[in-house]
Amino acid sequence: MPFTAVRRVEFCDTDMAGIAHFANFYRYMEQAEHELRRSLGMDIYERRPDGTVLSWPRVSASCSFHAPARHDDVLEIEVAVAKLGEKSVTFSFHIRRGETAVATGEMKSVCCVIRPGQPLESIDIPESIRGKLEAMTAEC
Amino acid sequence: MPFTAVRRVEFCDTDMAGIAHFANFYRYMEQAEHELRRSLGMDIYERRPDGTVLSWPRVSASCSFHAPARHDDVLEIEVAVAKLGEKSVTFSFHIRRGETAVATGEMKSVCCVIRPGQPLESIDIPESIRGKLEAMTAEC
Amino acid sequence: MPFTAVRRVEFCDTDMAGIAHFANFYRYMEQAEHELRRSLGMDIYERRPDGTVLSWPRVSASCSFHAPARHDDVLEIEVAVAKLGEKSVTFSFHIRRGETAVATGEMKSVCCVIRPGQPLESIDIPESIRGKLEAMTAEC
Amino acid sequence: MPFTAVRRVEFCDTDMAGIAHFANFYRYMEQAEHELRRSLGMDIYERRPDGTVLSWPRVSASCSFHAPARHDDVLEIEVAVAKLGEKSVTFSFHIRRGETAVATGEMKSVCCVIRPGQPLESIDIPESIRGKLEAMTAEC
Repeated sequence: MPFTAVRRVEFCDTDMAGIAHFANFYRYMEQAEHELRRSLGMDIYERRPDGTVLSWPRVSASCSFHAPARHDDVLEIEVAVAKLGEKSVTFSFHIRRGETAVATGEMKSVCCVIRPGQPLESIDIPESIRGKLEAMTAEC
Repeated sequence: MPFTAVRRVEFCDTDMAGIAHFANFYRYMEQAEHELRRSLGMDIYERRPDGTVLSWPRVSASCSFHAPARHDDVLEIEVAVAKLGEKSVTFSFHIRRGETAVATGEMKSVCCVIRPGQPLESIDIPESIRGKLEAMTAEC
Repeated sequence: MPFTAVRRVEFCDTDMAGIAHFANFYRYMEQAEHELRRSLGMDIYERRPDGTVLSWPRVSASCSFHAPARHDDVLEIEVAVAKLGEKSVTFSFHIRRGETAVATGEMKSVCCVIRPGQPLESIDIPESIRGKLEAMTAEC
Repeated sequence: MPFTAVRRVEFCDTDMAGIAHFANFYRYMEQAEHELRRSLGMDIYERRPDGTVLSWPRVSASCSFHAPARHDDVLEIEVAVAKLGEKSVTFSFHIRRGETAVATGEMKSVCCVIRPGQPLESIDIPESIRGKLEAMTAEC
Protein backbone atom coordinates (compact mmCIF):
# COMPACT_ATOMS: atom_id res chain seq x y z
CA MET A 1 0.00 0.00 0.00
CA PRO A 2 1.48 3.38 -0.94
CA PHE A 3 1.70 6.06 1.73
CA THR A 4 -1.00 8.70 1.38
CA ALA A 5 -1.30 12.10 3.06
CA VAL A 6 -4.53 14.08 3.08
CA ARG A 7 -4.70 17.84 2.78
CA ARG A 8 -7.48 20.40 2.42
CA VAL A 9 -7.12 23.36 0.01
CA GLU A 10 -7.31 26.39 2.30
CA PHE A 11 -8.90 29.72 1.37
CA CYS A 12 -5.51 31.44 1.47
CA ASP A 13 -4.18 28.87 -1.05
CA THR A 14 -6.55 30.16 -3.75
CA ASP A 15 -5.86 33.01 -6.17
CA MET A 16 -8.11 35.46 -8.01
CA ALA A 17 -8.69 32.87 -10.76
CA GLY A 18 -10.63 30.92 -8.12
CA ILE A 19 -8.28 27.92 -7.98
CA ALA A 20 -5.41 26.78 -5.77
CA HIS A 21 -2.31 28.71 -6.83
CA PHE A 22 0.15 26.25 -8.36
CA ALA A 23 3.07 27.19 -6.09
CA ASN A 24 1.18 25.70 -3.14
CA PHE A 25 1.45 22.22 -4.64
CA TYR A 26 5.17 22.18 -3.83
CA ARG A 27 4.29 22.77 -0.18
CA TYR A 28 1.63 20.06 -0.35
CA MET A 29 4.15 17.59 -1.79
CA GLU A 30 6.80 18.50 0.76
CA GLN A 31 4.37 18.11 3.63
CA ALA A 32 3.33 14.69 2.35
CA GLU A 33 6.99 13.68 2.04
CA HIS A 34 7.69 14.88 5.57
CA GLU A 35 4.65 13.02 6.86
CA LEU A 36 6.02 9.85 5.31
CA ARG A 37 9.47 10.48 6.80
CA ARG A 38 7.94 11.11 10.22
CA SER A 39 6.02 7.85 9.99
CA LEU A 40 9.40 6.13 9.56
CA GLY A 41 11.02 7.96 12.46
CA MET A 42 13.20 10.09 10.18
CA ASP A 43 13.89 13.68 11.12
CA ILE A 44 14.03 16.13 8.19
CA TYR A 45 16.33 18.39 10.18
CA GLU A 46 18.43 16.34 12.55
CA ARG A 47 20.65 18.12 15.03
CA ARG A 48 23.68 15.91 15.68
CA PRO A 49 25.91 15.57 18.77
CA ASP A 50 28.78 17.48 17.08
CA GLY A 51 26.57 20.57 16.64
CA THR A 52 26.08 20.07 12.90
CA VAL A 53 22.71 19.41 11.27
CA LEU A 54 21.73 16.74 8.75
CA SER A 55 19.12 18.00 6.31
CA TRP A 56 17.82 17.52 2.76
CA PRO A 57 17.92 20.57 0.46
CA ARG A 58 16.08 20.23 -2.86
CA VAL A 59 18.02 19.54 -6.04
CA SER A 60 14.98 19.71 -8.30
CA ALA A 61 11.20 19.68 -8.16
CA SER A 62 8.62 19.40 -10.92
CA CYS A 63 4.85 19.16 -11.04
CA SER A 64 2.25 18.69 -13.79
CA PHE A 65 -1.23 20.03 -13.18
CA HIS A 66 -4.06 17.94 -14.66
CA ALA A 67 -7.14 19.52 -13.07
CA PRO A 68 -7.64 22.61 -10.92
CA ALA A 69 -8.05 22.24 -7.18
CA ARG A 70 -10.49 24.55 -5.44
CA HIS A 71 -11.16 25.90 -1.97
CA ASP A 72 -12.18 23.17 0.50
CA ASP A 73 -11.17 20.36 -1.84
CA VAL A 74 -9.72 17.47 0.11
CA LEU A 75 -6.68 16.15 -1.74
CA GLU A 76 -5.08 12.74 -1.37
CA ILE A 77 -1.32 12.87 -1.91
CA GLU A 78 0.33 9.53 -2.58
CA VAL A 79 4.11 9.48 -1.93
CA ALA A 80 6.73 6.91 -2.86
CA VAL A 81 10.51 6.69 -3.25
CA ALA A 82 11.11 6.78 -7.02
CA LYS A 83 14.90 6.64 -6.94
CA LEU A 84 17.58 6.23 -4.31
CA GLY A 85 21.12 7.42 -5.10
CA GLU A 86 24.34 7.53 -3.07
CA LYS A 87 23.66 11.02 -1.75
CA SER A 88 20.18 11.78 -3.01
CA VAL A 89 16.62 10.52 -2.93
CA THR A 90 13.76 11.24 -5.34
CA PHE A 91 10.16 11.06 -4.21
CA SER A 92 7.19 10.81 -6.59
CA PHE A 93 3.73 12.20 -5.90
CA HIS A 94 0.23 11.52 -7.20
CA ILE A 95 -2.37 14.00 -6.07
CA ARG A 96 -6.05 13.08 -6.43
CA ARG A 97 -9.45 14.38 -5.44
CA GLY A 98 -11.63 11.30 -5.36
CA GLU A 99 -11.34 9.73 -8.83
CA THR A 100 -9.88 12.88 -10.41
CA ALA A 101 -6.13 13.10 -11.04
CA VAL A 102 -5.18 16.63 -9.96
CA ALA A 103 -1.40 16.69 -10.23
CA THR A 104 1.70 14.51 -10.54
CA GLY A 105 5.13 15.54 -9.30
CA GLU A 106 8.66 14.53 -8.43
CA MET A 107 11.16 16.05 -6.01
CA LYS A 108 14.83 15.21 -5.52
CA SER A 109 16.75 16.04 -2.34
CA VAL A 110 20.38 15.66 -1.44
CA CYS A 111 21.62 14.61 1.99
CA CYS A 112 23.66 17.51 3.42
CA VAL A 113 25.56 18.56 6.49
CA ILE A 114 24.70 22.10 7.54
CA ARG A 115 27.04 24.21 9.68
CA PRO A 116 25.87 27.70 10.69
CA GLY A 117 27.30 30.30 8.31
CA GLN A 118 29.06 27.66 6.18
CA PRO A 119 28.36 26.26 2.70
CA LEU A 120 26.20 23.12 2.51
CA GLU A 121 28.19 19.87 2.18
CA SER A 122 26.59 16.84 0.50
CA ILE A 123 27.35 13.42 2.03
CA ASP A 124 26.47 9.76 1.47
CA ILE A 125 23.11 8.89 2.95
CA PRO A 126 23.80 7.25 6.37
CA GLU A 127 23.05 3.51 6.39
CA SER A 128 20.30 3.68 9.00
CA ILE A 129 18.38 6.15 6.85
CA ARG A 130 19.16 4.31 3.61
CA GLY A 131 17.59 1.17 4.99
CA LYS A 132 14.32 2.91 5.68
CA LEU A 133 14.22 4.59 2.27
CA GLU A 134 15.02 1.29 0.53
CA ALA A 135 12.14 -0.41 2.26
CA MET A 136 9.85 2.30 0.91
CA THR A 137 11.20 1.78 -2.60
CA ALA A 138 10.58 -1.94 -2.42
CA GLU A 139 6.95 -1.32 -1.52
CA CYS A 140 6.27 0.69 -4.67
CA MET B 1 18.98 41.19 -24.72
CA PRO B 2 16.92 38.78 -22.58
CA PHE B 3 14.41 40.23 -20.14
CA THR B 4 15.67 40.19 -16.56
CA ALA B 5 13.77 40.76 -13.32
CA VAL B 6 15.52 41.45 -10.03
CA ARG B 7 14.34 40.13 -6.70
CA ARG B 8 15.68 40.13 -3.15
CA VAL B 9 15.40 37.03 -0.93
CA GLU B 10 13.28 38.20 1.98
CA PHE B 11 13.68 37.01 5.58
CA CYS B 12 10.30 35.26 5.44
CA ASP B 13 11.48 33.31 2.36
CA THR B 14 14.13 31.50 4.41
CA ASP B 15 13.65 28.29 6.37
CA MET B 16 15.35 26.85 9.45
CA ALA B 17 18.14 25.43 7.25
CA GLY B 18 19.14 29.08 6.69
CA ILE B 19 18.41 29.16 2.95
CA ALA B 20 15.53 30.30 0.75
CA HIS B 21 12.86 27.60 0.85
CA PHE B 22 12.64 26.03 -2.62
CA ALA B 23 8.89 26.59 -3.02
CA ASN B 24 9.53 30.35 -3.16
CA PHE B 25 11.38 29.97 -6.45
CA TYR B 26 8.09 29.23 -8.22
CA ARG B 27 6.79 32.58 -6.98
CA TYR B 28 10.02 34.28 -8.07
CA MET B 29 9.70 32.78 -11.56
CA GLU B 30 6.03 33.70 -11.83
CA GLN B 31 6.70 37.26 -10.77
CA ALA B 32 9.48 37.57 -13.35
CA GLU B 33 7.16 36.17 -16.04
CA HIS B 34 4.43 38.61 -15.05
CA GLU B 35 6.90 41.49 -15.07
CA LEU B 36 7.82 40.53 -18.64
CA ARG B 37 4.16 40.31 -19.64
CA ARG B 38 3.45 43.69 -18.06
CA SER B 39 6.33 45.22 -19.98
CA LEU B 40 4.57 44.02 -23.16
CA GLY B 41 1.19 45.38 -22.11
CA MET B 42 -0.24 41.90 -21.49
CA ASP B 43 -2.65 41.39 -18.62
CA ILE B 44 -2.30 38.04 -16.80
CA TYR B 45 -5.93 38.21 -15.77
CA GLU B 46 -7.92 40.08 -18.40
CA ARG B 47 -11.57 40.85 -17.71
CA ARG B 48 -13.36 40.90 -21.06
CA PRO B 49 -16.50 42.80 -22.17
CA ASP B 50 -18.67 39.64 -22.01
CA GLY B 51 -17.93 39.21 -18.30
CA THR B 52 -15.55 36.29 -18.78
CA VAL B 53 -11.86 36.38 -17.88
CA LEU B 54 -8.83 35.36 -19.93
CA SER B 55 -6.10 33.88 -17.77
CA TRP B 56 -3.18 31.44 -17.85
CA PRO B 57 -3.33 28.49 -15.43
CA ARG B 58 -0.17 26.40 -15.09
CA VAL B 59 0.13 23.08 -16.90
CA SER B 60 3.54 22.26 -15.47
CA ALA B 61 6.44 23.86 -13.65
CA SER B 62 9.92 22.55 -12.88
CA CYS B 63 13.02 23.98 -11.28
CA SER B 64 16.55 22.74 -10.64
CA PHE B 65 18.47 24.22 -7.76
CA HIS B 66 22.20 24.65 -8.32
CA ALA B 67 23.24 26.76 -5.34
CA PRO B 68 21.40 27.92 -2.22
CA ALA B 69 20.06 31.46 -2.05
CA ARG B 70 20.23 33.23 1.29
CA HIS B 71 18.55 36.12 3.07
CA ASP B 72 19.22 39.48 1.39
CA ASP B 73 20.65 37.88 -1.76
CA VAL B 74 19.69 39.88 -4.82
CA LEU B 75 18.72 37.46 -7.59
CA GLU B 76 18.62 38.18 -11.31
CA ILE B 77 15.89 36.20 -13.04
CA GLU B 78 16.22 35.97 -16.80
CA VAL B 79 12.96 35.08 -18.61
CA ALA B 80 12.36 34.00 -22.21
CA VAL B 81 9.67 32.26 -24.26
CA ALA B 82 10.99 28.72 -24.77
CA LYS B 83 8.03 27.35 -26.73
CA LEU B 84 4.82 28.73 -28.17
CA GLY B 85 1.97 26.30 -28.91
CA GLU B 86 -1.58 26.79 -30.19
CA LYS B 87 -3.04 27.16 -26.72
CA SER B 88 0.00 27.18 -24.48
CA VAL B 89 3.24 29.01 -23.83
CA THR B 90 6.37 27.82 -22.03
CA PHE B 91 8.71 30.27 -20.34
CA SER B 92 12.28 29.43 -19.32
CA PHE B 93 14.11 30.96 -16.38
CA HIS B 94 17.75 31.38 -15.40
CA ILE B 95 18.29 32.65 -11.88
CA ARG B 96 21.69 34.05 -10.94
CA ARG B 97 23.36 35.85 -8.09
CA GLY B 98 26.24 37.68 -9.72
CA GLU B 99 28.30 35.01 -11.50
CA THR B 100 26.70 32.12 -9.59
CA ALA B 101 23.98 30.04 -11.26
CA VAL B 102 21.35 29.57 -8.55
CA ALA B 103 18.47 27.86 -10.35
CA THR B 104 17.05 27.01 -13.77
CA GLY B 105 13.37 26.47 -14.44
CA GLU B 106 10.57 26.15 -16.95
CA MET B 107 6.86 26.83 -16.62
CA LYS B 108 4.06 26.08 -19.09
CA SER B 109 0.70 27.84 -19.03
CA VAL B 110 -2.43 27.31 -21.06
CA CYS B 111 -4.66 30.14 -22.29
CA CYS B 112 -8.07 29.73 -20.64
CA VAL B 113 -11.46 31.37 -20.39
CA ILE B 114 -12.67 31.57 -16.80
CA ARG B 115 -16.37 31.89 -15.92
CA PRO B 116 -17.32 32.17 -12.23
CA GLY B 117 -18.27 28.77 -10.85
CA GLN B 118 -17.62 27.00 -14.19
CA PRO B 119 -14.83 24.67 -15.34
CA LEU B 120 -11.83 26.28 -17.04
CA GLU B 121 -11.95 26.20 -20.87
CA SER B 122 -8.70 26.26 -22.88
CA ILE B 123 -8.69 28.32 -26.10
CA ASP B 124 -6.31 29.23 -28.90
CA ILE B 125 -4.05 32.11 -27.89
CA PRO B 126 -5.60 35.29 -29.38
CA GLU B 127 -3.57 36.73 -32.31
CA SER B 128 -2.74 40.02 -30.61
CA ILE B 129 -1.16 38.16 -27.69
CA ARG B 130 0.51 35.58 -29.92
CA GLY B 131 2.30 38.31 -31.81
CA LYS B 132 3.85 39.68 -28.65
CA LEU B 133 4.92 36.25 -27.42
CA GLU B 134 6.42 35.42 -30.82
CA ALA B 135 8.50 38.55 -30.76
CA MET B 136 9.88 37.46 -27.40
CA THR B 137 10.76 34.04 -28.79
CA ALA B 138 12.62 35.54 -31.71
CA GLU B 139 14.71 37.60 -29.35
CA CYS B 140 16.03 34.59 -27.48
CA MET C 1 -16.45 23.33 25.32
CA PRO C 2 -14.63 25.78 23.03
CA PHE C 3 -13.92 24.73 19.45
CA THR C 4 -10.30 23.67 18.93
CA ALA C 5 -8.40 23.10 15.68
CA VAL C 6 -5.08 21.29 15.58
CA ARG C 7 -2.23 22.23 13.30
CA ARG C 8 1.37 21.12 12.86
CA VAL C 9 4.16 23.66 12.21
CA GLU C 10 5.51 22.66 8.80
CA PHE C 11 9.16 22.94 7.75
CA CYS C 12 8.29 25.66 5.22
CA ASP C 13 6.66 27.69 8.02
CA THR C 14 10.02 28.15 9.76
CA ASP C 15 12.54 30.92 9.08
CA MET C 16 16.31 31.13 9.44
CA ALA C 17 15.93 32.00 13.13
CA GLY C 18 14.70 28.42 13.56
CA ILE C 19 11.14 29.29 14.59
CA ALA C 20 7.76 29.55 12.85
CA HIS C 21 7.65 32.88 11.02
CA PHE C 22 5.05 35.08 12.71
CA ALA C 23 3.07 35.79 9.52
CA ASN C 24 2.03 32.13 9.41
CA PHE C 25 0.01 32.54 12.59
CA TYR C 26 -2.57 34.60 10.67
CA ARG C 27 -3.03 31.65 8.33
CA TYR C 28 -3.27 29.27 11.31
CA MET C 29 -5.95 31.45 12.90
CA GLU C 30 -7.89 31.78 9.65
CA GLN C 31 -7.82 28.05 9.07
CA ALA C 32 -9.09 27.41 12.59
CA GLU C 33 -11.88 29.96 12.06
CA HIS C 34 -12.83 28.33 8.76
CA GLU C 35 -12.80 24.90 10.38
CA LEU C 36 -15.24 26.21 12.98
CA ARG C 37 -17.47 27.74 10.28
CA ARG C 38 -17.43 24.50 8.31
CA SER C 39 -18.46 22.57 11.40
CA LEU C 40 -21.53 24.86 11.54
CA GLY C 41 -22.34 24.41 7.85
CA MET C 42 -21.28 27.98 7.00
CA ASP C 43 -19.53 28.64 3.69
CA ILE C 44 -16.78 31.29 3.84
CA TYR C 45 -17.34 32.06 0.17
CA GLU C 46 -20.97 31.46 -0.73
CA ARG C 47 -22.03 31.74 -4.36
CA ARG C 48 -25.64 32.92 -4.41
CA PRO C 49 -28.40 32.33 -7.01
CA ASP C 50 -28.10 35.91 -8.35
CA GLY C 51 -24.46 35.36 -9.30
CA THR C 52 -23.05 37.42 -6.46
CA VAL C 53 -20.89 36.02 -3.68
CA LEU C 54 -21.19 36.44 0.08
CA SER C 55 -17.80 36.55 1.77
CA TRP C 56 -15.98 37.92 4.83
CA PRO C 57 -13.03 40.25 4.16
CA ARG C 58 -10.86 41.13 7.16
CA VAL C 59 -11.28 44.48 8.90
CA SER C 60 -8.47 43.90 11.36
CA ALA C 61 -6.27 41.18 12.78
CA SER C 62 -3.85 41.16 15.67
CA CYS C 63 -1.72 38.56 17.37
CA SER C 64 0.59 38.49 20.41
CA PHE C 65 3.38 35.95 20.47
CA HIS C 66 4.19 34.49 23.88
CA ALA C 67 6.52 31.62 23.01
CA PRO C 68 8.18 30.52 19.78
CA ALA C 69 6.70 27.61 17.85
CA ARG C 70 9.12 25.26 16.13
CA HIS C 71 9.12 22.74 13.30
CA ASP C 72 6.87 19.74 13.99
CA ASP C 73 5.20 21.39 16.98
CA VAL C 74 1.54 20.43 17.14
CA LEU C 75 -0.48 23.52 18.03
CA GLU C 76 -3.97 23.61 19.50
CA ILE C 77 -5.93 26.64 18.29
CA GLU C 78 -9.01 27.48 20.34
CA VAL C 79 -11.55 29.68 18.51
CA ALA C 80 -14.58 31.57 19.82
CA VAL C 81 -16.84 34.43 18.76
CA ALA C 82 -15.68 37.40 20.82
CA LYS C 83 -18.11 40.00 19.40
CA LEU C 84 -21.04 39.98 16.99
CA GLY C 85 -22.00 43.27 15.32
CA GLU C 86 -24.64 44.18 12.72
CA LYS C 87 -22.30 43.58 9.81
CA SER C 88 -19.19 42.18 11.43
CA VAL C 89 -17.95 39.35 13.61
CA THR C 90 -14.81 39.14 15.73
CA PHE C 91 -13.21 35.81 16.52
CA SER C 92 -10.69 35.28 19.33
CA PHE C 93 -7.89 32.71 19.29
CA HIS C 94 -5.77 31.00 21.93
CA ILE C 95 -2.89 28.98 20.55
CA ARG C 96 -1.19 26.43 22.80
CA ARG C 97 1.37 23.67 22.63
CA GLY C 98 0.48 21.39 25.49
CA GLU C 99 0.55 23.59 28.63
CA THR C 100 2.50 26.40 26.93
CA ALA C 101 0.64 29.50 25.71
CA VAL C 102 2.14 30.23 22.29
CA ALA C 103 -0.01 33.08 20.95
CA THR C 104 -3.27 34.97 21.42
CA GLY C 105 -5.10 36.75 18.64
CA GLU C 106 -8.27 38.41 17.40
CA MET C 107 -9.62 38.86 13.89
CA LYS C 108 -12.61 40.91 12.73
CA SER C 109 -14.40 40.29 9.43
CA VAL C 110 -17.21 42.15 7.73
CA CYS C 111 -20.01 40.44 5.81
CA CYS C 112 -19.76 41.57 2.17
CA VAL C 113 -21.36 41.05 -1.21
CA ILE C 114 -18.76 40.55 -3.94
CA ARG C 115 -19.52 41.21 -7.60
CA PRO C 116 -16.76 40.50 -10.17
CA GLY C 117 -14.87 43.71 -10.96
CA GLN C 118 -16.96 45.79 -8.53
CA PRO C 119 -16.17 47.33 -5.13
CA LEU C 120 -17.00 45.24 -2.07
CA GLU C 121 -20.34 46.10 -0.42
CA SER C 122 -20.86 45.44 3.31
CA ILE C 123 -24.30 44.16 4.37
CA ASP C 124 -26.11 43.11 7.54
CA ILE C 125 -25.25 39.54 8.50
CA PRO C 126 -28.13 37.34 7.20
CA GLU C 127 -30.34 35.96 10.01
CA SER C 128 -29.57 32.30 9.32
CA ILE C 129 -25.86 32.97 9.74
CA ARG C 130 -26.35 35.29 12.71
CA GLY C 131 -28.16 32.55 14.58
CA LYS C 132 -25.24 30.18 14.24
CA LEU C 133 -22.69 32.81 15.28
CA GLU C 134 -24.82 33.80 18.29
CA ALA C 135 -24.93 30.22 19.46
CA MET C 136 -21.16 30.17 19.37
CA THR C 137 -20.96 33.36 21.39
CA ALA C 138 -23.26 31.98 24.04
CA GLU C 139 -21.03 28.96 24.44
CA CYS C 140 -17.97 31.04 25.28
CA MET D 1 10.50 62.73 5.57
CA PRO D 2 9.23 59.29 6.66
CA PHE D 3 10.81 56.22 5.10
CA THR D 4 8.64 54.66 2.39
CA ALA D 5 8.94 51.27 0.71
CA VAL D 6 7.10 50.42 -2.49
CA ARG D 7 5.61 47.02 -3.23
CA ARG D 8 3.43 45.58 -5.97
CA VAL D 9 0.56 43.17 -5.15
CA GLU D 10 1.53 39.97 -6.95
CA PHE D 11 -0.92 37.54 -8.55
CA CYS D 12 -0.06 34.88 -5.97
CA ASP D 13 -0.94 37.35 -3.18
CA THR D 14 -4.60 37.42 -4.26
CA ASP D 15 -7.31 35.01 -3.12
CA MET D 16 -10.54 33.79 -4.73
CA ALA D 17 -12.36 36.91 -3.47
CA GLY D 18 -10.21 38.83 -5.98
CA ILE D 19 -8.25 40.85 -3.41
CA ALA D 20 -4.86 40.59 -1.70
CA HIS D 21 -5.20 38.04 1.10
CA PHE D 22 -4.84 39.87 4.42
CA ALA D 23 -2.02 37.64 5.74
CA ASN D 24 0.28 39.03 3.04
CA PHE D 25 0.16 42.48 4.64
CA TYR D 26 2.31 41.21 7.52
CA ARG D 27 4.95 40.22 4.99
CA TYR D 28 4.62 43.62 3.27
CA MET D 29 5.12 45.39 6.59
CA GLU D 30 8.07 43.22 7.56
CA GLN D 31 9.75 43.79 4.22
CA ALA D 32 9.29 47.55 4.57
CA GLU D 33 10.75 47.43 8.09
CA HIS D 34 13.72 45.40 6.86
CA GLU D 35 14.25 47.82 3.98
CA LEU D 36 14.39 50.65 6.51
CA ARG D 37 16.84 48.72 8.69
CA ARG D 38 19.03 47.93 5.69
CA SER D 39 19.10 51.61 4.76
CA LEU D 40 20.54 52.25 8.24
CA GLY D 41 23.13 49.47 7.97
CA MET D 42 21.32 47.27 10.48
CA ASP D 43 21.29 43.51 9.96
CA ILE D 44 18.04 41.76 10.94
CA TYR D 45 19.96 38.56 11.59
CA GLU D 46 23.47 39.36 12.75
CA ARG D 47 25.94 36.53 13.20
CA ARG D 48 28.34 37.54 15.97
CA PRO D 49 31.98 36.55 16.58
CA ASP D 50 31.01 34.21 19.47
CA GLY D 51 28.84 32.11 17.14
CA THR D 52 25.55 33.43 18.49
CA VAL D 53 23.05 35.41 16.46
CA LEU D 54 21.31 38.69 17.24
CA SER D 55 17.79 38.80 15.84
CA TRP D 56 14.35 40.34 16.42
CA PRO D 57 11.45 37.92 16.97
CA ARG D 58 7.96 39.46 16.94
CA VAL D 59 6.15 40.12 20.20
CA SER D 60 2.98 41.34 18.56
CA ALA D 61 1.63 42.52 15.21
CA SER D 62 -1.67 44.12 14.28
CA CYS D 63 -3.15 45.54 11.11
CA SER D 64 -6.40 47.31 10.18
CA PHE D 65 -7.62 47.03 6.62
CA HIS D 66 -9.34 50.12 5.23
CA ALA D 67 -9.64 49.31 1.53
CA PRO D 68 -8.93 46.17 -0.49
CA ALA D 69 -5.70 45.93 -2.48
CA ARG D 70 -5.86 44.18 -5.83
CA HIS D 71 -3.52 42.45 -8.26
CA ASP D 72 -0.91 44.82 -9.73
CA ASP D 73 -1.68 47.60 -7.24
CA VAL D 74 1.47 49.45 -6.30
CA LEU D 75 1.44 50.09 -2.56
CA GLU D 76 3.43 52.71 -0.67
CA ILE D 77 4.37 51.52 2.81
CA GLU D 78 5.46 54.25 5.22
CA VAL D 79 7.48 53.00 8.20
CA ALA D 80 8.47 54.76 11.41
CA VAL D 81 9.66 53.86 14.91
CA ALA D 82 6.61 54.32 17.12
CA LYS D 83 8.17 53.28 20.42
CA LEU D 84 11.63 52.32 21.64
CA GLY D 85 11.92 50.26 24.85
CA GLU D 86 14.89 48.76 26.70
CA LYS D 87 14.69 45.48 24.82
CA SER D 88 12.02 46.09 22.22
CA VAL D 89 11.11 48.35 19.32
CA THR D 90 7.68 49.04 17.79
CA PHE D 91 7.35 50.09 14.18
CA SER D 92 4.21 51.71 12.73
CA PHE D 93 3.05 51.34 9.14
CA HIS D 94 0.78 53.33 6.83
CA ILE D 95 -0.02 51.60 3.57
CA ARG D 96 -1.44 53.67 0.71
CA ARG D 97 -2.29 53.32 -2.95
CA GLY D 98 -2.12 56.87 -4.27
CA GLU D 99 -4.52 58.90 -2.14
CA THR D 100 -6.32 55.83 -0.78
CA ALA D 101 -5.49 54.57 2.73
CA VAL D 102 -5.30 50.80 2.37
CA ALA D 103 -4.08 49.62 5.78
CA THR D 104 -2.49 50.73 9.05
CA GLY D 105 -0.40 48.49 11.26
CA GLU D 106 2.02 48.16 14.13
CA MET D 107 4.62 45.49 14.91
CA LYS D 108 6.72 45.04 18.04
CA SER D 109 9.96 43.05 18.11
CA VAL D 110 12.27 42.11 20.93
CA CYS D 111 16.05 42.03 20.65
CA CYS D 112 17.17 38.42 21.21
CA VAL D 113 20.26 36.26 21.26
CA ILE D 114 19.74 33.03 19.35
CA ARG D 115 21.85 29.91 20.00
CA PRO D 116 21.19 26.81 17.86
CA GLY D 117 18.85 24.42 19.67
CA GLN D 118 18.52 26.75 22.70
CA PRO D 119 15.64 28.96 23.93
CA LEU D 120 15.63 32.59 22.74
CA GLU D 121 17.11 35.07 25.24
CA SER D 122 15.98 38.72 25.22
CA ILE D 123 18.66 41.34 25.84
CA ASP D 124 18.98 45.14 26.05
CA ILE D 125 19.22 46.69 22.61
CA PRO D 126 22.96 47.35 21.97
CA GLU D 127 23.87 51.06 22.06
CA SER D 128 25.02 51.24 18.43
CA ILE D 129 21.64 49.96 17.26
CA ARG D 130 19.70 52.07 19.76
CA GLY D 131 21.27 55.22 18.41
CA LYS D 132 20.07 54.47 14.90
CA LEU D 133 16.55 53.61 16.03
CA GLU D 134 16.39 56.77 18.18
CA ALA D 135 17.30 58.90 15.19
CA MET D 136 14.40 57.35 13.31
CA THR D 137 12.03 58.10 16.15
CA ALA D 138 13.10 61.72 16.27
CA GLU D 139 12.36 62.09 12.59
CA CYS D 140 8.73 61.03 12.99
